[in-house]
Amino acid sequence: MRPSGREPDAMRTIEMIPGFSAHAEGSCLVKFGRTHVLVTASVEERLPPWLRGKGSGWVTAEYGMLPRATHTRGNREAAKGKQSGRTQEIQRLIGRSLRAVTDLKLLGERQITLDCDVIQADGGTRTAAISGAWVALRLAIDGIMAKNGLGQDPLAMQVAAVSCGIHNEVPVLDLDYDEDSDAGTDANFVLTSTGGIVEVQATAEGAPFDEESLLRMLRLARIGCGQIFAAQLAATGR
Amino acid sequence: MRPSGREPDAMRTIEMIPGFSAHAEGSCLVKFGRTHVLVTASVEERLPPWLRGKGSGWVTAEYGMLPRATHTRGNREAAKGKQSGRTQEIQRLIGRSLRAVTDLKLLGERQITLDCDVIQADGGTRTAAISGAWVALRLAIDGIMAKNGLGQDPLAMQVAAVSCGIHNEVPVLDLDYDEDSDAGTDANFVLTSTGGIVEVQATAEGAPFDEESLLRMLRLARIGCGQIFAAQLAATGR
Amino acid sequence: MRPSGREPDAMRTIEMIPGFSAHAEGSCLVKFGRTHVLVTASVEERLPPWLRGKGSGWVTAEYGMLPRATHTRGNREAAKGKQSGRTQEIQRLIGRSLRAVTDLKLLGERQITLDCDVIQADGGTRTAAISGAWVALRLAIDGIMAKNGLGQDPLAMQVAAVSCGIHNEVPVLDLDYDEDSDAGTDANFVLTSTGGIVEVQATAEGAPFDEESLLRMLRLARIGCGQIFAAQLAATGR
Amino acid sequence: MRPSGREPDAMRTIEMIPGFSAHAEGSCLVKFGRTHVLVTASVEERLPPWLRGKGSGWVTAEYGMLPRATHTRGNREAAKGKQSGRTQEIQRLIGRSLRAVTDLKLLGERQITLDCDVIQADGGTRTAAISGAWVALRLAIDGIMAKNGLGQDPLAMQVAAVSCGIHNEVPVLDLDYDEDSDAGTDANFVLTSTGGIVEVQATAEGAPFDEESLLRMLRLARIGCGQIFAAQLAATGR
Amino acid sequence: MRPSGREPDAMRTIEMIPGFSAHAEGSCLVKFGRTHVLVTASVEERLPPWLRGKGSGWVTAEYGMLPRATHTRGNREAAKGKQSGRTQEIQRLIGRSLRAVTDLKLLGERQITLDCDVIQADGGTRTAAISGAWVALRLAIDGIMAKNGLGQDPLAMQVAAVSCGIHNEVPVLDLDYDEDSDAGTDANFVLTSTGGIVEVQATAEGAPFDEESLLRMLRLARIGCGQIFAAQLAATGR
Amino acid sequence: MRPSGREPDAMRTIEMIPGFSAHAEGSCLVKFGRTHVLVTASVEERLPPWLRGKGSGWVTAEYGMLPRATHTRGNREAAKGKQSGRTQEIQRLIGRSLRAVTDLKLLGERQITLDCDVIQADGGTRTAAISGAWVALRLAIDGIMAKNGLGQDPLAMQVAAVSCGIHNEVPVLDLDYDEDSDAGTDANFVLTSTGGIVEVQATAEGAPFDEESLLRMLRLARIGCGQIFAAQLAATGR
Repeated sequence: MRPSGREPDAMRTIEMIPGFSAHAEGSCLVKFGRTHVLVTASVEERLPPWLRGKGSGWVTAEYGMLPRATHTRGNREAAKGKQSGRTQEIQRLIGRSLRAVTDLKLLGERQITLDCDVIQADGGTRTAAISGAWVALRLAIDGIMAKNGLGQDPLAMQVAAVSCGIHNEVPVLDLDYDEDSDAGTDANFVLTSTGGIVEVQATAEGAPFDEESLLRMLRLARIGCGQIFAAQLAATGR
Repeated sequence: MRPSGREPDAMRTIEMIPGFSAHAEGSCLVKFGRTHVLVTASVEERLPPWLRGKGSGWVTAEYGMLPRATHTRGNREAAKGKQSGRTQEIQRLIGRSLRAVTDLKLLGERQITLDCDVIQADGGTRTAAISGAWVALRLAIDGIMAKNGLGQDPLAMQVAAVSCGIHNEVPVLDLDYDEDSDAGTDANFVLTSTGGIVEVQATAEGAPFDEESLLRMLRLARIGCGQIFAAQLAATGR
Repeated sequence: MRPSGREPDAMRTIEMIPGFSAHAEGSCLVKFGRTHVLVTASVEERLPPWLRGKGSGWVTAEYGMLPRATHTRGNREAAKGKQSGRTQEIQRLIGRSLRAVTDLKLLGERQITLDCDVIQADGGTRTAAISGAWVALRLAIDGIMAKNGLGQDPLAMQVAAVSCGIHNEVPVLDLDYDEDSDAGTDANFVLTSTGGIVEVQATAEGAPFDEESLLRMLRLARIGCGQIFAAQLAATGR
Repeated sequence: MRPSGREPDAMRTIEMIPGFSAHAEGSCLVKFGRTHVLVTASVEERLPPWLRGKGSGWVTAEYGMLPRATHTRGNREAAKGKQSGRTQEIQRLIGRSLRAVTDLKLLGERQITLDCDVIQADGGTRTAAISGAWVALRLAIDGIMAKNGLGQDPLAMQVAAVSCGIHNEVPVLDLDYDEDSDAGTDANFVLTSTGGIVEVQATAEGAPFDEESLLRMLRLARIGCGQIFAAQLAATGR
Repeated sequence: MRPSGREPDAMRTIEMIPGFSAHAEGSCLVKFGRTHVLVTASVEERLPPWLRGKGSGWVTAEYGMLPRATHTRGNREAAKGKQSGRTQEIQRLIGRSLRAVTDLKLLGERQITLDCDVIQADGGTRTAAISGAWVALRLAIDGIMAKNGLGQDPLAMQVAAVSCGIHNEVPVLDLDYDEDSDAGTDANFVLTSTGGIVEVQATAEGAPFDEESLLRMLRLARIGCGQIFAAQLAATGR
Repeated sequence: MRPSGREPDAMRTIEMIPGFSAHAEGSCLVKFGRTHVLVTASVEERLPPWLRGKGSGWVTAEYGMLPRATHTRGNREAAKGKQSGRTQEIQRLIGRSLRAVTDLKLLGERQITLDCDVIQADGGTRTAAISGAWVALRLAIDGIMAKNGLGQDPLAMQVAAVSCGIHNEVPVLDLDYDEDSDAGTDANFVLTSTGGIVEVQATAEGAPFDEESLLRMLRLARIGCGQIFAAQLAATGR
């Protein structure tokens, strides 16, 4: 029924390779099926000027896609001289999602930048990025804590994200590219390991959807995020 | 309780002044309390190259804010040489929302651009913009229909948007600036006059929220949009 | 004779609505007939770095036009990523004109930015902007004086501007769009309430003009500015 | 009295070296004292898309200044990534001035670009540029006429420009840098060899000026342009 | 002696993983020790406008570095809005090198873009990129040939590149980051499998070098490229 | 045999006019035949922020070409809003070459910017620029030394550059435009007056070249630079 043959509530295979990058303070190559995103966490012990002197830190994200991560080659944003609206929307979402589970006061006056670069795309790059970013951030914060003994862990819970959609009138979990380009409704959910909702973004691509569909997609997202939370723990050795 | 003294389910005063602009094919000055947005609809009988020859039209939106629409002056985007991520996110949302209720095939090979310029801001500029854009679009399409008798009306239903939030743990409708900067959760709902959902964007600014809160905000949004739909009909003389 | 039926020395109806903006320290919606410009004056108590420590202030202006202020839609400068040469020329002229009547030493180390945004255009937007900017600046300075008692008023006289042209070989005052696009010569005069000339910009669009025409246009400009000065006083309650 | 010791109505030494550039269809190195501007005229037999098919041509100008043409080094505009408002204002003025004496219909469907690059600056670069541009344009049109026998000369008269100012309350002709930075009023006049006025731009840098001063500066400009017209004829062998 | 303990003429371990990318017509993840570059070859059956209709094709390259490919995070070029001079220099070199071994006439009217993205950097990214690009290009051309039987192979020979330097006065092969930042002279050689030289770029970072050193570095480069040529053949199954 | 009739080892006529610019601390108009480059050296007694406080200075270069320096007009980089890859490559090379012969410690905390602007181009603009830049730099440093007695001369030797190529299979010296556009190999050599090599950039435009050709071009370059060194000494009165 689904192009991939998956059940409506079946995720793609999740793989999380921690420490993929030799230089970054934390890193993770995250794979949701054929969607591969490399996330690095870079710790800087000084804040940009507008954030200094407030006794708290900052977590931010940048997002990019290699030009040929996709079926047909896209233009390189560095060559075009600007980031698209889509790129900016996604990197703002990733940053917000990770800040939602980080206590910036406890982090202290330092900045962590999460670079999420899509090596290969097959739908769901932003949700894979958020999910992998938690691993990279966790590892980076572990490093800070090991080095200088932050009194308390600023990262008290997990955050993960997954996409859902309505495909052929059936709510389904974790859309790949084929489904995504064909789905009537497309939704991204960002959830915490404590059951809270951090962000919901649901968009009707064709006909408007109803409250029932929204709730069914949310339930699928809980199933998917449960599996991601488990993979995150495994990847960070917890 | 609310800074404005409004009940949790009370909208600000809505005012919609159709035909505000002398030159545009459709226009509306929309006011949600002290938030004032001027929307113009410009009809062009030719499409940009990449949309030509497919037998259907396009509806797009641009968004801007006068530098001193806000409490403190912001930099002019034209002077900075680029639109912020926030601006791009908003104008993409406005365009998507209006396209969701427009049959682009019936519109024929023409483009309508909705320029939404915030004259004065007090929270909820994007939802006011969407709500006013429908009026401008309706008037512009009325004009096309009067002139050349499109066989069928491409705009079969209304679309409106309103923000909700959780303020002091109470779900409230139509946040003004004071509430918005203080709310724990901020959500924008785009709904159709037929009861469908076009877009949900809900974000936890502080603690994550739960499903119950999401549903209560959606119910408030239905109340608010009902009043906006009525104002739209009055403004377009229907 | 004139497309509008006006006498050669007749201005369009002038309207000046002070305090139009809720947030700005001074503001004015100025209308010269169907040309509508919103001017806000924003006071900042700190100067940009290159102006600091010289014991004097600064007055500057920015100019913009809503994309559909005109008969056909123009591209949004923020989207194009740069301000046109015309925009820069106009905002430099506005800034120069207002500085010509402001004692920057008496203003003290603060900056006032005059944002002039054309809501609707029908010729003469730059002259309307200068004329309205004086009202916004006057109100902003009144506010500063009320608050902290500047010893002496830095704004000792008024400044106003009007366009003149040679249309069908007749010098005429205050061109609207129809005349402007058809005029052989186009001139802008910036005058003070004490009779001085701040700026003359006269351009032959077709055949060169002669000294006699220049002088006759200057005389018309004095008539027009007289009426604007009166409107400015009324708008600022003087 | 004047820093240079010149009489109020004395021009600096004018030098015009035609054919300075080996490649351009027309060129002139023009010197007003220590102000040196290289102007090249480039003829292209095709128009930019928006000018095609109207049976007439176009004359346009670009202006630049070498970074160290001035007393202290200025930033290179190519490195900054944009042309300043001043640059754009000047190149628009140059283009307008030359078009005012060119019959674009007679020119036919071709474009002539006048590049005016300041090699060394000592005040009055824009007026030197306009004056030298006429020579480069004349030579380029001579070349076109020699080659393909345009029926009629599209350049029926000369155009020249000179600056005037009020320095120590005395109207003076052709300001150099020392005077310019110190003058109370600064004016540029663009005049034709038939006695007509193409453009007047007069600006009060300090106190407003009066009508009498404007007229006295215009008279000085006529004296200066007379000498420039003679130099132009000599340079073009007429 | 060398920071890595390698002999002066010892390359780092070379690894070339062909077909790394699911979507590209050709691809290769190339590793020179800890320097990892992903190269994709994208075939487009149409040329950019300025190359059309000449009966020949084009090979071009773009280069980028993930922000945290390096020891400390660099700014993202897409966010800065421009590619650095270094990036442009490198991508021009890569494009030139691959065109030097491609017969563009035989390629026919199609363009192949080689995207070289540095996943991890440890010196020698440009030479690894060129070496890996040959593999990606070979695979892409194999694909074109399999599909539509190009009469003759446009890629008649191999090209590879390697860096050399003078470190502690000893010429050494294939510098890693530690050596590179410390070397007195830095040179890149691009060689063909037929023994020809495509490009030499040798730069004295400290004291000038002599002819003897240039020749000794060239000899080392021949040794290194010999190993790369073998790895290329293995990776492309030849 | 050569388009110019020159012998393979013959330079074009070299001319170096020191002190060409009235304002710069050092300057030189350098001519290699019909290639004319104006170089100015600007001394600033303060460094950009990232270079301060290290007790040493900086020498940097910028390069530009007047739009009609070439056979057909090129677009102005300031108008396009960015410097081409070619421009950046050249200005990086010029800066590197001059720093190679400057002791930045002895220079002290000041920056010298070498602006190299091509007035007329006929091949070899970058090598003429480097050769002339040494003269401008020498003069600027002479000025600093005369003024404040630097203990020791930071410019201990000369640097010059020349292009060579293989034209009709014959290695030739100092290519002009006609040869350059037709040469199979193009090489630039930057040499010091003490016989050292600062930079070699050799590129096969057509068929790869061999070691023998590289060495023969290097020998030609030594001949050419010998003549340039003499001209530099003459121009600086040594």
